[in-house]
Amino acid sequence: MVVILKPGVTTEKRNQLINWLNAQNLQVHISEGAQYTVLGLVGDTAHTDMDLIASLDIVDSVKQVSDPFKRCNRKFHPDDSVISVGDLQVGGGNFTVIAGPCSVESEEQIVAVAKAVKASGATMLRGGAFKPRTSPYDFQGLKADGLELLKTARAETGLPIVTEIVSLADIDLFEDIDVIQVGARSMQNFELLKELGHISKPILLKRGLSATLKELLMSCEYIMAGGNEQIILCERGIRTYSDYTRNTLDLSAVPMLHELSHLPVIVDPSHATGLSRLVRPMAMAATACGADGLIIEVHNDPLHALCDGAQSLRPEEFDSLMKDLDALRKVVLK
Amino acid sequence: MVVILKPGVTTEKRNQLINWLNAQNLQVHISEGAQYTVLGLVGDTAHTDMDLIASLDIVDSVKQVSDPFKRCNRKFHPDDSVISVGDLQVGGGNFTVIAGPCSVESEEQIVAVAKAVKASGATMLRGGAFKPRTSPYDFQGLKADGLELLKTARAETGLPIVTEIVSLADIDLFEDIDVIQVGARSMQNFELLKELGHISKPILLKRGLSATLKELLMSCEYIMAGGNEQIILCERGIRTYSDYTRNTLDLSAVPMLHELSHLPVIVDPSHATGLSRLVRPMAMAATACGADGLIIEVHNDPLHALCDGAQSLRPEEFDSLMKDLDALRKVVLK
Amino acid sequence: MVVILKPGVTTEKRNQLINWLNAQNLQVHISEGAQYTVLGLVGDTAHTDMDLIASLDIVDSVKQVSDPFKRCNRKFHPDDSVISVGDLQVGGGNFTVIAGPCSVESEEQIVAVAKAVKASGATMLRGGAFKPRTSPYDFQGLKADGLELLKTARAETGLPIVTEIVSLADIDLFEDIDVIQVGARSMQNFELLKELGHISKPILLKRGLSATLKELLMSCEYIMAGGNEQIILCERGIRTYSDYTRNTLDLSAVPMLHELSHLPVIVDPSHATGLSRLVRPMAMAATACGADGLIIEVHNDPLHALCDGAQSLRPEEFDSLMKDLDALRKVVLK
Amino acid sequence: MVVILKPGVTTEKRNQLINWLNAQNLQVHISEGAQYTVLGLVGDTAHTDMDLIASLDIVDSVKQVSDPFKRCNRKFHPDDSVISVGDLQVGGGNFTVIAGPCSVESEEQIVAVAKAVKASGATMLRGGAFKPRTSPYDFQGLKADGLELLKTARAETGLPIVTEIVSLADIDLFEDIDVIQVGARSMQNFELLKELGHISKPILLKRGLSATLKELLMSCEYIMAGGNEQIILCERGIRTYSDYTRNTLDLSAVPMLHELSHLPVIVDPSHATGLSRLVRPMAMAATACGADGLIIEVHNDPLHALCDGAQSLRPEEFDSLMKDLDALRKVVLK
Repeated sequence: MVVILKPGVTTEKRNQLINWLNAQNLQVHISEGAQYTVLGLVGDTAHTDMDLIASLDIVDSVKQVSDPFKRCNRKFHPDDSVISVGDLQVGGGNFTVIAGPCSVESEEQIVAVAKAVKASGATMLRGGAFKPRTSPYDFQGLKADGLELLKTARAETGLPIVTEIVSLADIDLFEDIDVIQVGARSMQNFELLKELGHISKPILLKRGLSATLKELLMSCEYIMAGGNEQIILCERGIRTYSDYTRNTLDLSAVPMLHELSHLPVIVDPSHATGLSRLVRPMAMAATACGADGLIIEVHNDPLHALCDGAQSLRPEEFDSLMKDLDALRKVVLK
Repeated sequence: MVVILKPGVTTEKRNQLINWLNAQNLQVHISEGAQYTVLGLVGDTAHTDMDLIASLDIVDSVKQVSDPFKRCNRKFHPDDSVISVGDLQVGGGNFTVIAGPCSVESEEQIVAVAKAVKASGATMLRGGAFKPRTSPYDFQGLKADGLELLKTARAETGLPIVTEIVSLADIDLFEDIDVIQVGARSMQNFELLKELGHISKPILLKRGLSATLKELLMSCEYIMAGGNEQIILCERGIRTYSDYTRNTLDLSAVPMLHELSHLPVIVDPSHATGLSRLVRPMAMAATACGADGLIIEVHNDPLHALCDGAQSLRPEEFDSLMKDLDALRKVVLK
Repeated sequence: MVVILKPGVTTEKRNQLINWLNAQNLQVHISEGAQYTVLGLVGDTAHTDMDLIASLDIVDSVKQVSDPFKRCNRKFHPDDSVISVGDLQVGGGNFTVIAGPCSVESEEQIVAVAKAVKASGATMLRGGAFKPRTSPYDFQGLKADGLELLKTARAETGLPIVTEIVSLADIDLFEDIDVIQVGARSMQNFELLKELGHISKPILLKRGLSATLKELLMSCEYIMAGGNEQIILCERGIRTYSDYTRNTLDLSAVPMLHELSHLPVIVDPSHATGLSRLVRPMAMAATACGADGLIIEVHNDPLHALCDGAQSLRPEEFDSLMKDLDALRKVVLK
Repeated sequence: MVVILKPGVTTEKRNQLINWLNAQNLQVHISEGAQYTVLGLVGDTAHTDMDLIASLDIVDSVKQVSDPFKRCNRKFHPDDSVISVGDLQVGGGNFTVIAGPCSVESEEQIVAVAKAVKASGATMLRGGAFKPRTSPYDFQGLKADGLELLKTARAETGLPIVTEIVSLADIDLFEDIDVIQVGARSMQNFELLKELGHISKPILLKRGLSATLKELLMSCEYIMAGGNEQIILCERGIRTYSDYTRNTLDLSAVPMLHELSHLPVIVDPSHATGLSRLVRPMAMAATACGADGLIIEVHNDPLHALCDGAQSLRPEEFDSLMKDLDALRKVVLK
């Protein structure tokens, strides 16, 4: 940690601070400039309250030197982590496509979509059973019944299943789910994260709507601190002033997360844009900048033949996209 | 709901959509312009999927006409709601000042702060027992023991106590707490909100870091839909590009929330700015634009005499602020 | 335009508004719902003050139906515009790579970089002569001398030159420049845009740091209204809360701008990220989602051999990237 | 400046950097931690390229220690600057209210509004003659004729006049204007700022829509570096994700700018919110947190009697607000 003192601080006040820091087992290197004095703190600053020091009236600002995230930090684990989901491997050069409907609606629906996306090359099935909805008056998902339908679709296709948990009270229901998704709204539900740290199952952790990359990685730390190191990160759009798409897909997060962390990073172009016609170009872009995979909404509902579903692809659109992604992957991998 | 069709839509496609809307018990009024056709939907659109219609290839855009929030909407409840906390009343012209330390640390600390803030005129005591922290390696609060210490401070001073819940698993511990706070990170923890809808206790609901006012009010609906209508809203700063303060205090939310909803609105200048020296001016500003109260961090820790606490006022600063607020209130109320 | 009236508006007040609208040559279609009344305005609303109507106390909200941008709107010009720069064509399936140093520094530098980027396949040369700098104490560019050096580099390589104008007072100096760049800070310098509308030369118009797509397209309208329809749009990152990159590259703007407008869209990954190591992945992503080209910073300064330049590629890195882009283009075009 | 090196940097590479820094007349203090090495640079770093150093592959990050703004910095000028506008003084405890219509429309209008706002206690008259409009198809102001009408209103009332310049080509027309306003869109029109640095007239400098406080102060430096130190800063709302108001009024900028700079700071609640009904509460809040004044839109147009003007107060509303502000000022000043 580096502490920058304001100009004109008295030696007495400076020494008072240095003594206080020394008392916390920190060595202090002093670097005096023309106007400012810089203190370099050496020792374990993991428990030093940076905000507290920054608030001292003799302090101009404080800069953290070491990253606060440890277990997911690539500095201490240079190789890519590869997460196993049954026989499937996520990260480390593998490309994972998770596809399926927004919500599980019926056995016919989920099995039909599962078969379709498998035929097109998807490697996992997604589908919401517990749905976090902005309005209490909206459909909240089939819940436990939805989980059962997902298992049926798995039995029919062999695709591992990914679905979202919204409350730690439901955790026992997820025992036979292959990958548990933590949604954007739950990224800082720390009690849930702690609990997920104690199970032995891959977690798909979505970036919060206004989370920095550091905050996303600190949420990983909550899970990893409990012992569960099987995490797949997911960029799914952030909230900005821009209003043409539902969120703003932050694709530079993909190479940046790869630099900061050894964990795999996938991208959700469906939720990021909220518009099915943008899913193809954004899926291509995500793949081109090095994403380890995609999570894409695909629906197959004859009752809704009239329309596209705001952000879902039809199976034939998904099939066409998969062919393009395949060609693209060959160029990106080279 | 208003649906705007793209130019050049065929009569056949238009009628197909109108038939589909009629089948959902919606009447359709057609208004044909030079280029665009506008459909006004009449009937109960609460369950009509706006995103789905917006995604149709013949549709340019959709506009919701009625507010999606009902129970907290001032249109259907023109008078201010007044929330009772014991003998205390929040909203409806009453001014509430909730003060106390960021975290409950010890009996000495919480009782001393409670006595100090009461002497200065605070009407409720705050203090964190369960602390949501970005890092799993940081202090997570005294938990159940912290709640007991708050009750001790209440017994000593008579001040009602406000403290944050972070997991619905802890809800039984909050039975004897006066006001349960839902923090910014939990504003869309819908399972927690549903549970809080079934108890009979005032809820202090903080705006999420990147929540729109509509989203905040929809979170109220989750609580109110369960039957609990005792909600106090809290503006506590939003995340923007601006980097001089921790968050950007959005004070125009105060009169805007008063226009949209009948619920009381208080302001948290401590968390919004993260800087103790900005608490006074922002507390004054919040009061001047009509807030129903404030929640302010005050600490009293001789071990930290060296510093202010990044965002906490010292008791003497709080006391001075309370005198100024008192004078200001007389002008604002007039 | 659609006007939504508040619930409970009296017939008298409603008729007063309708009469006022009729007086402005607007027909009004009334659609009465259970709570709200919707007025559909038919006629030329281009000069109707939407904000004024929205502010009426009987009005809930107003929605614009037709796009305010006309000349750049794809609805009225379905085919891609192709902009000619000498023999070169931008847009309509052509891929344009503009490369060169941030600033023109010397003849040796600009000629060397020009030769290098041409050898790698760049189709235009960029280089700043007039530099808009946040600080008045920073280097402001070689100005007129820099323009002359760009012309020398053009003479040596045959590459058309692109450079930024910062003031309409300089416009005569740009007579022999091939493409005039309007920087992000000038996107709403309307007096400059008007002037550029009266010349006959391609304009590279960069999106402002916090501009919506609509605002970017309205700035096009300023140029096009004057008669100059040769505009190349450029996405170069927007300002958000996210702090790992200098700006947030908004790549979904690429397909969205293609949907809204017939003008070509290129991407600047160098300024968007501010980090040279992110230029390659973001250039690949931009190409994969359909950009018509790229503008990339490349430097070649032996004095700075120590480092990369914060956002500039070295010629050999650019060369390697161009090979990958070439392979990628074949997949995207198919 | 403080340079933090990555873990594991070789002594050779480190010395190479130190030699390079020494060659730029900078002394380097080394502080070695367990993982990171921190270099404190001592000397004149005003021309050291921070981005360049940050981009070196051995560098983790760089932190600027001293503020880049000098002339407007309170550290070097602890007392409030007081700007004289004729007999009027702005800043230093004086409270300035600038009022008037959005646009100058006619002699009758501007004189009537000027008389009305003077009667209510306004100390300066505002009115747009050159209007920066998002659309080229909207009214662009009366231009030179508008300036003449403002002078007429000044002659009738004695109120100094404030109006916006949009192009340095118009600067001669502003010779007899009392205060020249630089709008939000022009805050980084550096060529205009330089020109305004060479005249001797107060400048009202509005914060750009997405400008940081540092960027606003660097724009001051452009004007002050030319010799003109008469600047009034203006907070007028920033662009955020929040959509209930046109912009988000960032009131904590007021005390923060007072801390960073000695220049007066006024607030524009009309443009910030875009809603006339929010002008009163936000004007009160701005005053309560220490603003040196306000700039408020007031209209008086019998043709528009139907409505309020989206963000303008009627004269009687302004009069009522002025009485409340007067009472509030007594409490704030104390």
